[in-house]
Amino acid sequence: MAVGFKGIPSMAPVPGFRIGVASAGVKTPGRRDLVVMELAPQSTCAAVFTRNAFCAAPVVLSREHLGKARPRYLLVNTGNANAGTGERGMTDAQACCAALARVAGCTAAEVLPFSTGVIGEPLPVAKIMAALPDAVAALAGEAWEAAAQGIMTTDTVPKGASRQLVIEGKTVTITGIAKGAGMIRPDMATMLAFVATDAAVSRERLQACLESAVNRSFNRITVDGDTSTNDSCILAATGASGVQIGEGPAWSAFAEAVAEICEELAQAIVRDGEGATKFITVDVSGGRDSGECLDAAYAVAQSPLVKTAAFASDPNWGRILAAVGRAGIADLDLNAVTIHLGDVCIVRNGGRAEDYEEARGAAVMKQEEITIRIDLARGSVRERVWTCDFSYDYVRINAEYRT
Amino acid sequence: MAVGFKGIPSMAPVPGFRIGVASAGVKTPGRRDLVVMELAPQSTCAAVFTRNAFCAAPVVLSREHLGKARPRYLLVNTGNANAGTGERGMTDAQACCAALARVAGCTAAEVLPFSTGVIGEPLPVAKIMAALPDAVAALAGEAWEAAAQGIMTTDTVPKGASRQLVIEGKTVTITGIAKGAGMIRPDMATMLAFVATDAAVSRERLQACLESAVNRSFNRITVDGDTSTNDSCILAATGASGVQIGEGPAWSAFAEAVAEICEELAQAIVRDGEGATKFITVDVSGGRDSGECLDAAYAVAQSPLVKTAAFASDPNWGRILAAVGRAGIADLDLNAVTIHLGDVCIVRNGGRAEDYEEARGAAVMKQEEITIRIDLARGSVRERVWTCDFSYDYVRINAEYRT
Repeated sequence: MAVGFKGIPSMAPVPGFRIGVASAGVKTPGRRDLVVMELAPQSTCAAVFTRNAFCAAPVVLSREHLGKARPRYLLVNTGNANAGTGERGMTDAQACCAALARVAGCTAAEVLPFSTGVIGEPLPVAKIMAALPDAVAALAGEAWEAAAQGIMTTDTVPKGASRQLVIEGKTVTITGIAKGAGMIRPDMATMLAFVATDAAVSRERLQACLESAVNRSFNRITVDGDTSTNDSCILAATGASGVQIGEGPAWSAFAEAVAEICEELAQAIVRDGEGATKFITVDVSGGRDSGECLDAAYAVAQSPLVKTAAFASDPNWGRILAAVGRAGIADLDLNAVTIHLGDVCIVRNGGRAEDYEEARGAAVMKQEEITIRIDLARGSVRERVWTCDFSYDYVRINAEYRT
Repeated sequence: MAVGFKGIPSMAPVPGFRIGVASAGVKTPGRRDLVVMELAPQSTCAAVFTRNAFCAAPVVLSREHLGKARPRYLLVNTGNANAGTGERGMTDAQACCAALARVAGCTAAEVLPFSTGVIGEPLPVAKIMAALPDAVAALAGEAWEAAAQGIMTTDTVPKGASRQLVIEGKTVTITGIAKGAGMIRPDMATMLAFVATDAAVSRERLQACLESAVNRSFNRITVDGDTSTNDSCILAATGASGVQIGEGPAWSAFAEAVAEICEELAQAIVRDGEGATKFITVDVSGGRDSGECLDAAYAVAQSPLVKTAAFASDPNWGRILAAVGRAGIADLDLNAVTIHLGDVCIVRNGGRAEDYEEARGAAVMKQEEITIRIDLARGSVRERVWTCDFSYDYVRINAEYRT
């Protein structure tokens, strides 16, 4: 069970955006594993994809389709990533888009495909095609939770977030879902996220909004340092609320709400990290620039020694300090660095803080949610990343998955 | 038990180099945890230390002493790393050196201190001082295996290597020991290595020889991506054989033998990696330069997903390809990359090789020693790194250690 999971929140429907879920049995017979999302005509759509050089076919094709047409449908299957499948993978993804286009009455280029699951197995195209009519027939505004269930792979819980804000006297809704639990690190990961709003936003503004939100959310999480072939994040704006997001306060409020949704979804992925028993925030301040803050934060957040210590609730400040020490920050004065576990100062003057008592550090580490605060004491920049601990179950899940 | 361990090899004594082992009970009462090594007068000594900004006191002091005097004694304790101990750590290390100097009859600057074990606890100086006379009284040429035992921490087996070669009609001996099992990655790790020879080699030549050897051995291994505060590698040359190593063939033969010793010790560390059940060679060829080969090799060798797949004997080529894809190699054409498990081609043309059969890949992965060969197909440079798999026991060892 994900750390701190209290059930998926109430998911407000987004006017102009409909979802249909069906069972294709891609990997598991009977599983509701196929999700179709429909964008009202005139919707705008922004996208961010994995930076892994090894891109899955659906990522390549989605990028291609985005350059050709305004998306009307998103087609998502779980159980099979259609990655590492060579030319056949491209043909298969195209076939699925064409099939949905026929059922829904649009062009294939108006469909963006997304796949997640096992790498390197051919996509069972016939199964997906057979289930498309059911998915399209089911299209409705209320199916967000079913969709969040539908896109899960090794996730143990569905992940969603929803906000409503009043802009110019009208209600604007932003609702999103995500999946992902392993192969997670910055620059996207084995994750899919779909966020929709009924605001009206130009394509350019929407893309800027999404990129900014991703940079403080999905690009700030790590489970195991691995990135994936299929990562995709979509932000769709249907305009059905009649509220046009231009500049000024409306833009700020809207962009902040989108970023908050993305942070909530990103954190939900870490909370559901494979085998996770702890949710860890690594908060690095006092850096000269964002880069060195992130170097320190990721050195700590990705250290197997820090992560196994967190699993053991061991306030092992030596491992944290050693990770900061190898982060490659030029001329770092380790004697100036301070490290806190929660509110407890554990490192000062290059070693254990004089007033530190193990019992206080241990009390922090026993909590399900832990903040490691590192002050580099050489500048004013701050960055945060989120990670989880490293447990027996991480090994079990990844040693057993697929075989 | 370390992967492929067949017992410590026969360790030839090195004339001019003596070792004494005693019990200081630093962490465990009765444990023979204190090792003193004596270099004959006129010996030369080369050293390489951790690049972690968080350096332990003994590393700082060893560097300082090397700048002041010609080392006569190496003083090694296990059980406590004297790291993260601030000013007191420096005073403690100095006190130990001074104490050995008094017992042995040299200056404190002629003693190099080395510590390994728990970080952040004060060094039990009195215990070490009390055991020094025993260690000095025990000095003898044959104690290499006892020393290899004496410096172990989480190691499950002692690590040693020894070569004899004939140069100018005379026998030259090179013998070394190492310790290390976790917190291991390039640029040294929680490892100590001591290699001695009875050749006569100038300090400059010896340093060049050691740096070159370290670069193809200790700097090519990773267990968990973490580096340590205490890593030190020493190469001492006593000259007692009467063979002066100048230029030409003698130099080549000598340097190669030193590098082989270091490779054998480095590989022994990986074979004994915490929780290791597999020894994995990642061999990357076809690179444009050494840097991109190493980027690809380490992306694979440090991927928790690849390492858990290895633990499960799962020929999961998708995870390997995804790791290569995120290595950050500019303009990498993944369609040109080929990947072999042993002699079995698993990836070609951006996906699973057409003629690949899972049973053949699985047969390779079931072996205790696995080679993953990656051809980037864009240059002629090759690099190799060594790693191990990631098992339940890695988590157990690192979650339980210290607490």
